[in-house]
Amino acid sequence: MTTHLLTVSDRTEAELIALVQAHLAAPPDWLVVGIGDDAAVVEPARNRLEVLTVDALVDGVHFDRRFTPPDAIGHRALAVNLSDIASMGAEPRYALLSMALPATLPLVDFDRMAAGFAHLASRHKVHVIGGNLTRTPGPLTIDVTVAGSVKRRDVLRRSGARPGDEVYVSGVIGAAAAGLRALRAGTATPDIAEAVSQYLRPQPRVRLGMLLGRNRAASACMDLSDGLADAAHQVARMSGVGMVVEAGQLPLLPAASARDIVEGWDPVRPAVTGGDDYELLFTVRPRLRRRLQTIARQADVTITRVGVCTADPTVVLHRADHDEPMPRGYGHFQ
Amino acid sequence: MTTHLLTVSDRTEAELIALVQAHLAAPPDWLVVGIGDDAAVVEPARNRLEVLTVDALVDGVHFDRRFTPPDAIGHRALAVNLSDIASMGAEPRYALLSMALPATLPLVDFDRMAAGFAHLASRHKVHVIGGNLTRTPGPLTIDVTVAGSVKRRDVLRRSGARPGDEVYVSGVIGAAAAGLRALRAGTATPDIAEAVSQYLRPQPRVRLGMLLGRNRAASACMDLSDGLADAAHQVARMSGVGMVVEAGQLPLLPAASARDIVEGWDPVRPAVTGGDDYELLFTVRPRLRRRLQTIARQADVTITRVGVCTADPTVVLHRADHDEPMPRGYGHFQ
Repeated sequence: MTTHLLTVSDRTEAELIALVQAHLAAPPDWLVVGIGDDAAVVEPARNRLEVLTVDALVDGVHFDRRFTPPDAIGHRALAVNLSDIASMGAEPRYALLSMALPATLPLVDFDRMAAGFAHLASRHKVHVIGGNLTRTPGPLTIDVTVAGSVKRRDVLRRSGARPGDEVYVSGVIGAAAAGLRALRAGTATPDIAEAVSQYLRPQPRVRLGMLLGRNRAASACMDLSDGLADAAHQVARMSGVGMVVEAGQLPLLPAASARDIVEGWDPVRPAVTGGDDYELLFTVRPRLRRRLQTIARQADVTITRVGVCTADPTVVLHRADHDEPMPRGYGHFQ
Repeated sequence: MTTHLLTVSDRTEAELIALVQAHLAAPPDWLVVGIGDDAAVVEPARNRLEVLTVDALVDGVHFDRRFTPPDAIGHRALAVNLSDIASMGAEPRYALLSMALPATLPLVDFDRMAAGFAHLASRHKVHVIGGNLTRTPGPLTIDVTVAGSVKRRDVLRRSGARPGDEVYVSGVIGAAAAGLRALRAGTATPDIAEAVSQYLRPQPRVRLGMLLGRNRAASACMDLSDGLADAAHQVARMSGVGMVVEAGQLPLLPAASARDIVEGWDPVRPAVTGGDDYELLFTVRPRLRRRLQTIARQADVTITRVGVCTADPTVVLHRADHDEPMPRGYGHFQ
């Protein structure tokens, strides 16, 4: 039997854990007890608050193994959590990786998932301090908890926006959704490679989030995991403001928009309602514009002003010729 | 349509989160940002290390909805993690609850799961600071992360046992496995109610673990989630010692043993290899026996001396008339 025919059921739990560990960087000095005991023990960051988030990816819901390479699954499982940490202005520190594995999962796919996870972890100096492996009669399910740290006064919330604050987003929006549509339809040709890459291997805006927090540049912040429309509604609601978002200012990916236009679609609506953009939406007092430009340069990411917060609590999408209510995001259980 | 016919797919994610929140205690003052933002923000416990663990329960693997009431599923999902925190000598503080829900899950079952989880959380002053809900085309899967805190010098590990240390276990062993067998076989008659209860609603030894740590009474500690045989092997291996466990001293549940004997089985082997006992196995220097008795009284739990650590690195089960190698625990992927 050759190696690529082996599945995870040919290995013990201890052997699978060892496979994951082989991809991990050396343990940091703040890790007092690592993998191999009943729980991990960590020295907290001095004078910092802890920031914690958990997110799950389920095969057939959040990705599809038929068109998502294993390393991209591992990458995305961590990226979605790093994006949440970034949106709080925090610096990620460690992760716990819990996987429910179907018995038929090829061992080589398991290994590549771990590699994709570990590679992104290493880029952001995140250490995997523990986890859990179990078999499942159902789909591959990856549950990741990430913890970070932040100074109390640097915490970014969804609730701090005021009327007059300007609304920004990082990167491009709608690209991941366009990439996913192309993958699903089998039309992921090279012209749309960037969109496909945004879907498969999103780059969480960790440095941007930290700099926005440290420089107290943003009054509110949220990530775009459920799409810009959802984020605009959430930040507006939690802050008690409204928002006018300029459709013409939205940083759409030209290739993705071109395809929508050719197919006779409005490129704006799928871009604002599509999820999986691990970009940040944040609000900024107008007097901090220059500070913000410095931060964007330091974070090496494009940011785009897309609107403004209003006293009127409605969230409006402003088109060239008319206003319309900002669409609702999608609800996972609807 | 009456309420009990509703499923989770009749509710939005926000409505399901609200259902969970309705069961939770008021947020503690150390919770800076709770449910409702991109991540939770927590003030760390002063002068303490953080202890973290994650464990998943999958329907059909770790429980079976056909004979596990929803509140017991919620209870167990938290209990297995509290047991890990206890085995490190730590005090639990907060939990993150991540659930993958099949669309057909009755809403009332979801609510009772949340209630079972919240009830145990409240008993141990554990606050649910965040989580995740997703749908799944597969089985109900509950992933729980629990964090606790402990003084550096109070941390209990698997690795501190020395030859001559005495081996103890809390509570009774093998009861949960006997209860599970009876539930599976449909023979859960009243004589075995205690064993069934040990399986459905295990009581993690949180107070015992904390007292063992604070009083520096145990040289090594581990929980029995994968059975006593597995724990004995792990503690021996990590400590570089061997162990002789006296079969005749093991605290078996009389009703469970009686049933095994009637059925012509050896009651010891299933008791040491059966998992799901959320008791602690720990080793103690002989001179600390009196301190230990005080701790057991304070923790209100029976403890039983079942063996001794040896310089010879084998792990032996000592029977009345012969010695045999301690069986191996079960591996999830074998």
